[in-house]
Amino acid sequence: MQTLKVDLGDRSYPIYIGSGLLQQKELIQTHIQGKTTAIVSNKTIAPLYLEALHQTIESYKNTDIILPDGEKYKTLETEQQIFTQMLSAHCDRKTTLLALGGGVVGDITGFAAACYQRGIDFIQVPTTLLAMVDSSVGGKTGVNHPLGKNMIGAFHQPQCVLVDIDTLNTLDDKQLSAGLAEVIKYGFINDPEFLDWLDSNMEKLLQRDKEALSYAIYRSCQHKAAIVAADEREAGQRALLNLGHTFGHAIETGMGYGKWLHGEAIAVGMVMAAELSQKMGWITSKDVQGVKDLLTKANLPIVPPKEISADQFSQLMSVDKKVQDGVLSLVLMTSYGESIVTSDFDQKELKAVLGSTLL
Amino acid sequence: MQTLKVDLGDRSYPIYIGSGLLQQKELIQTHIQGKTTAIVSNKTIAPLYLEALHQTIESYKNTDIILPDGEKYKTLETEQQIFTQMLSAHCDRKTTLLALGGGVVGDITGFAAACYQRGIDFIQVPTTLLAMVDSSVGGKTGVNHPLGKNMIGAFHQPQCVLVDIDTLNTLDDKQLSAGLAEVIKYGFINDPEFLDWLDSNMEKLLQRDKEALSYAIYRSCQHKAAIVAADEREAGQRALLNLGHTFGHAIETGMGYGKWLHGEAIAVGMVMAAELSQKMGWITSKDVQGVKDLLTKANLPIVPPKEISADQFSQLMSVDKKVQDGVLSLVLMTSYGESIVTSDFDQKELKAVLGSTLL
Repeated sequence: MQTLKVDLGDRSYPIYIGSGLLQQKELIQTHIQGKTTAIVSNKTIAPLYLEALHQTIESYKNTDIILPDGEKYKTLETEQQIFTQMLSAHCDRKTTLLALGGGVVGDITGFAAACYQRGIDFIQVPTTLLAMVDSSVGGKTGVNHPLGKNMIGAFHQPQCVLVDIDTLNTLDDKQLSAGLAEVIKYGFINDPEFLDWLDSNMEKLLQRDKEALSYAIYRSCQHKAAIVAADEREAGQRALLNLGHTFGHAIETGMGYGKWLHGEAIAVGMVMAAELSQKMGWITSKDVQGVKDLLTKANLPIVPPKEISADQFSQLMSVDKKVQDGVLSLVLMTSYGESIVTSDFDQKELKAVLGSTLL
Repeated sequence: MQTLKVDLGDRSYPIYIGSGLLQQKELIQTHIQGKTTAIVSNKTIAPLYLEALHQTIESYKNTDIILPDGEKYKTLETEQQIFTQMLSAHCDRKTTLLALGGGVVGDITGFAAACYQRGIDFIQVPTTLLAMVDSSVGGKTGVNHPLGKNMIGAFHQPQCVLVDIDTLNTLDDKQLSAGLAEVIKYGFINDPEFLDWLDSNMEKLLQRDKEALSYAIYRSCQHKAAIVAADEREAGQRALLNLGHTFGHAIETGMGYGKWLHGEAIAVGMVMAAELSQKMGWITSKDVQGVKDLLTKANLPIVPPKEISADQFSQLMSVDKKVQDGVLSLVLMTSYGESIVTSDFDQKELKAVLGSTLL
């Protein structure tokens, strides 16, 4: 087992990465303060791992809250249903929530923990690659609004993140690739060396080689933990983690939540960010091709959906959280393996990139 | 104008108390960082003060969000509607929300600010006595759930609290008395001297004498600010502020939100807390009579509604936020003008107090 620390003063917590962690009673129990727990999971994950988790926390009074599976249930309405179950089960301020599932379950559960009686503890037990390397770390929690993704939420840090890589065995190929999009993202933000490693090891990752996966997860979490520790509430550099996300969120919202996997939308978003960066003269067409090639190698899409017009794209991006006082900031690339947050780009070139989706 | 500070490190903020403050442009503008605002108010208050506030913040791009009036709209559903209006108006992370109204508007608006894009600024402009002396100070925000009052929420501190006592001129008598319940509460928590003052000046307060009201508001906010500064997230002594509230919340939830005013329910709750304290032998029957007399002087009810049985009361109180690991804590009186938080009371005596509602 490897351990990483997210360094946030009295909100610091460990990320545990290894095999068979779901069965280790002591590991998880160290992070549960009261006598009661509630596991939040979904109908796909629960049949696979709920029983194992039950056994690990058998000494606590536990309630199961099983949600339907899918991004389209990441809503305030689902939160209300969770609160109803928690209140009916007499969950109180000392109850610990356990998020067993992917990014959607983690985001919903974290926000429920942030708001229930104005804040209780929770633990992330991510079961998808995407959740392991990104959404379970850093305390961003929340739900979608029909007018914008992740618009409603809170910063609320977990007590720990338990990454049991054995759970990746049951992940389908599409979801594995979607997770790789976020792994690759860290390379493009500021780790060209990692990009080389990914290029050489993509086949192993797709074949679920445990050693390769462990390394990729550890290195990704290392990046995430460092950025979060430096800028918990996204006053500055944390926004780098949104490489590809403003474009990607527009795709997810525009197509209807759940049609595109988050990682797929982010992959296309990174291509669009690369294209705009090239139009600004910051990177070469060879760099753009490199972005496309690596994503293609990971079986990810690189072309935006034809259904969204340039105008729709603009509209959807205008409500993004990266807009402040009416000015949109984007994460763009300054070299192959280096990105910056900037509002200093040409609106016409942005339109051109958005318009190219129609070709 | 008088100014008090709520001392919370980088979350510190001032409370301004005075006449005509709603018209003072500079005062409010100091606390607005971006270029956009949204005023949240309700259908009762908006016709009275919205125009004045518009003029004061005319240099900002503003959106009005006008809610129906009443505690029964303090729900997640209302929050969703607020988010829809904010997103439609392109509110972003630098938008400041202004809560113009009573406690319900303040709680809803504060929670909207806590959750919109994971947290934006807001300013409290309370227009009821209850909001001025209690709910607008201290950062408790949230909504009700059908199974429990204030069960969903966040700690989110405002940028400032602007108490314009002129707005009390339009408050109806019932609401004024409800506010006095929270004023009186501070006396019973730890200020017997203030209880004497209230006893001597109740007539003036009911006649809306400006000097008396200003003094009562200032002294109440002083108590609140001190307690909040010492214990922002209610790990300990902040729970004292809930004197009468566990009983009162049960009345509000049991009767259906909005049937009883919050202050009325809290008045009865204080009487019940006094009665239990007497049964425990901590205060005398003369003290209990003193509690009843002062509340009666303020035109507040002192008898719980017959509609709620002892069993219902128990059930409703068991989901209160003061329950931790299954143990209920209550705020009880140890003398006339001194209270403590304790779980060390006799369950049988509690049942007796709850049962007396049927007499």
